[in-house]
Amino acid sequence: MRNIKMIVAYDGSRYKGYQKLGDNDMTIQEKLESVLSKMANETIEIIGSGRTDMGAHARGQVINFKTNCIDSVDKIQKYLYEYLPEDIVVKTVEEVDERFHSRYNVKSKTYLYKIDNNKYHSPFMRKYAAHISKKLDLDRMRKASEYLIGEHDFTSFASSKSKKKSNVREIYSINIKENDDIVEIYIEGNGFLYNMVRIIVGALIDVGLKRKAPQDVKHMLESKDRSKSSDTAPAKGLCLWKVKYE
Amino acid sequence: MRNIKMIVAYDGSRYKGYQKLGDNDMTIQEKLESVLSKMANETIEIIGSGRTDMGAHARGQVINFKTNCIDSVDKIQKYLYEYLPEDIVVKTVEEVDERFHSRYNVKSKTYLYKIDNNKYHSPFMRKYAAHISKKLDLDRMRKASEYLIGEHDFTSFASSKSKKKSNVREIYSINIKENDDIVEIYIEGNGFLYNMVRIIVGALIDVGLKRKAPQDVKHMLESKDRSKSSDTAPAKGLCLWKVKYE
Repeated sequence: MRNIKMIVAYDGSRYKGYQKLGDNDMTIQEKLESVLSKMANETIEIIGSGRTDMGAHARGQVINFKTNCIDSVDKIQKYLYEYLPEDIVVKTVEEVDERFHSRYNVKSKTYLYKIDNNKYHSPFMRKYAAHISKKLDLDRMRKASEYLIGEHDFTSFASSKSKKKSNVREIYSINIKENDDIVEIYIEGNGFLYNMVRIIVGALIDVGLKRKAPQDVKHMLESKDRSKSSDTAPAKGLCLWKVKYE
Repeated sequence: MRNIKMIVAYDGSRYKGYQKLGDNDMTIQEKLESVLSKMANETIEIIGSGRTDMGAHARGQVINFKTNCIDSVDKIQKYLYEYLPEDIVVKTVEEVDERFHSRYNVKSKTYLYKIDNNKYHSPFMRKYAAHISKKLDLDRMRKASEYLIGEHDFTSFASSKSKKKSNVREIYSINIKENDDIVEIYIEGNGFLYNMVRIIVGALIDVGLKRKAPQDVKHMLESKDRSKSSDTAPAKGLCLWKVKYE
């Protein structure tokens, strides 16, 4: 069987998240599997690099699937472009080694979190950014973000619903940019717990609004207690930006 | 009576354009007038700097209206922010001289036209850019745009529905930028005929795709014949960017 790898972008506004819940449900996985299965005339199950939340977006979600379909990758891409809804777009299709697994082989993931920091929100960003009307102090946020870089136990920054054996993850970088009152936070790490990016952003927002001091983020980490950190930032600001592989 | 000037941004995707058609119709003018009239407890009629087409957007539409309402400009802005739908946002409110008229006093208008030049469209730009999958040659487009700068009779670049006494307008500048396969065309002029920006962009696209030569744009102008120029580019790529006043 062939192993096909695809990079997928989607506007998650209309969907209940990436992960399939049941048949005919509004999830990204369901939409992709249903079109692929029709194309290949066999049941296709896709493996994603990870889930994305209801209302969150992706520019570079990576998925792979095994198939007996003999169509060229170009033909597969054109078929998907024709039959997927216009808010899900397959950007690249390639045939890869049979051992490639889009979840197990992840080397790093980068998320982009967008904040619309205009006093009154931009109508064009309302589905793609969290709106914070009070000005954020980005230097304080950058200071706070330094405490998160490196390998840490991120228990305080994971949803209590997270059921991983270990909550230790490594964050490689956090870059905070601003342009025309839109704040972009890029976070790259070797893996992320359930809601981890959104809770980290929640903490950075608390620091940016001076509700918390930069060093409070250090105490949050050390407490290993979800109730000691910040609120989860809204899903709509979150975008799975890039997944890198070994 | 007070004369109030406002800068308004809107995502035009859901609307039948700026201009009121009838009561309770989905137009920007109708939405604004209905909320303002409720606020002021009198019938408010607004004057816009000009119409925008069905599906076209604005970042800097300027409107003004006369009112007996004595509320502060801050209070007016907050009221509008609360009661307008989230795709129409009033960015500034100020009291101006009674003689200010948002259409008659226009010194220049700038439109931004966005083209998504990715082979497969970006799901995030699908309502805010026209999608052209074949690569555009921007240098050719820049050459063509030079023929349009200055004062010309733009009959070839106006909808045949346009009923102005004179079709002479002056274009001050056309700037074409590209970033990450999104092409942005900024056009500033002293005024624009019906569909003029979209037909100019249609001509630039023809040149960028090598269907036409840059100097063909000169011949189009000289012909003063709508049927000799190009197709009208889609409304969704168009955004009224900025209006300047005397």
